[in-house]
Amino acid sequence: MDEPDFTLAHARVAIIGLGLMGGSLALALKGRCAEIVGTDTQAETVALALKHSIVDRAADFDSAPECDLLILAAPVRAILAQLNTLRSISSLAQASQISLLDLGSTKSQITAAMEKLPAYFDPLGGHPMCGKEVSGIENADADLFRGKTFVLTPLARTSPRALRLAHELIDAIGAHPLVLSAERHDALAATASHLPYLIAATLMRAAQTMSDEQFWNVAASGFRDTSRLAASDLTMMTDILLTNRAAILEALTRYRAELDTLIQLIDTADPEALRAALEPAQTHRAQLFK
Amino acid sequence: MDEPDFTLAHARVAIIGLGLMGGSLALALKGRCAEIVGTDTQAETVALALKHSIVDRAADFDSAPECDLLILAAPVRAILAQLNTLRSISSLAQASQISLLDLGSTKSQITAAMEKLPAYFDPLGGHPMCGKEVSGIENADADLFRGKTFVLTPLARTSPRALRLAHELIDAIGAHPLVLSAERHDALAATASHLPYLIAATLMRAAQTMSDEQFWNVAASGFRDTSRLAASDLTMMTDILLTNRAAILEALTRYRAELDTLIQLIDTADPEALRAALEPAQTHRAQLFK
Repeated sequence: MDEPDFTLAHARVAIIGLGLMGGSLALALKGRCAEIVGTDTQAETVALALKHSIVDRAADFDSAPECDLLILAAPVRAILAQLNTLRSISSLAQASQISLLDLGSTKSQITAAMEKLPAYFDPLGGHPMCGKEVSGIENADADLFRGKTFVLTPLARTSPRALRLAHELIDAIGAHPLVLSAERHDALAATASHLPYLIAATLMRAAQTMSDEQFWNVAASGFRDTSRLAASDLTMMTDILLTNRAAILEALTRYRAELDTLIQLIDTADPEALRAALEPAQTHRAQLFK
Repeated sequence: MDEPDFTLAHARVAIIGLGLMGGSLALALKGRCAEIVGTDTQAETVALALKHSIVDRAADFDSAPECDLLILAAPVRAILAQLNTLRSISSLAQASQISLLDLGSTKSQITAAMEKLPAYFDPLGGHPMCGKEVSGIENADADLFRGKTFVLTPLARTSPRALRLAHELIDAIGAHPLVLSAERHDALAATASHLPYLIAATLMRAAQTMSDEQFWNVAASGFRDTSRLAASDLTMMTDILLTNRAAILEALTRYRAELDTLIQLIDTADPEALRAALEPAQTHRAQLFK
């Protein structure tokens, strides 16, 4: 893999974890690379991936798959465990370096673990900013990444070739690359993604304290959308909360201060002050996501 | 309108306020009643309603429209002002009682004001549990109410005939009736509807404190859905917050306690305790809104 003209079309890609993210990536890469192999901790998932030709064949992670691009697509703490396993591999079956990309939701701990990998790995952090509140290969979708931001968090040791290959992959699946430091990604994701999940879960918890049996007949589309993320995969979410704790606590502190401001304004019941506090949020949100 | 066999098909309906709710109701009732007249404080709205035949003709609210069913479809404080105007009307142009229904988002203050109306009004509180984050007649939709809960909050003085006519109307627009006391409606709506709006607005306010110019490139579908309600019509929302203040403050207090519980659990970083706290919300939300 030392040729300067090495492209995605020549790459043997191995995807570790064939859930929503890994399965969708395999579907999106179909026909864009030399081979796609994959594996998963769940035997049924691997069987399903083979049955529906989502991967060309099953990979064997234990011996580090022979491939040009190794993609880790599991919850964050599973990726950290996989990186630990890779670190202890004494030698590779193949001669050239393996490009390593992960799709984990938080990046600081993962890129720190990547720094410790042997030299025959060429690691790069990645995070496609998309998802669904449902998980698993049965919800995999070739268009999941289309039009979405795909964050890359390079390490000092990441080679230009690995970065070029990742950009080619992002282009192939229809996403837009955004290069950030791991710390900056984690601070942004805390407010953009992890906070909305916690808000949704908190709303569900508050609703569950309602003893009135008519509550769920009155809850409409507003409640539905605001609470949607509460249904997110629990392993993925607890891993995020445990590996981005400081940034999430900072985001929660800012959110709680804003909440207290609004509670105070409702308590005071000054129509003009209330409207003035809500207006910038209204104007801004009405312009977003057109 | 004293005939026991008086039905919606015989009713001359007047709709005061032709925004999202009033306009959608006019569209949904098309061909189901004798006549639909309407008016709005915005002349362009009336012009649009006439141009697109959303109403048969423009009504004149100042002299209390000659009709069998008068529907008030404005923000809550505008409805309260309209009820005050109706209260001072000394006599009616017509002989029989007028059924009066409102579509206001909070019910306690409105039904209290309805109690003071002259005897030739037969009032009934109503609230269809549906909406959009966009407002105005241009977003009116004949199917807005289809499959949705339509709450009725009868007064002691509400006649069986007015209640029957309202049930017929709810059936005609494809909604499901739910009879509640005004106070019970307001307590349920505080958590089911007003709290989600405030959560969305608070999330937008917290996001607006982010100085990183890449923030909006990282915000994805999770942020989009959780913040959607922040774009709701401001007059409608401030009227809700001002007329359901006590129930909303109670809901906010419960929500804030749940938020503090989760903040504490994230701070402690016990994987099992965190998962146990999030699991009931996850399981419940995954089952809802199928």
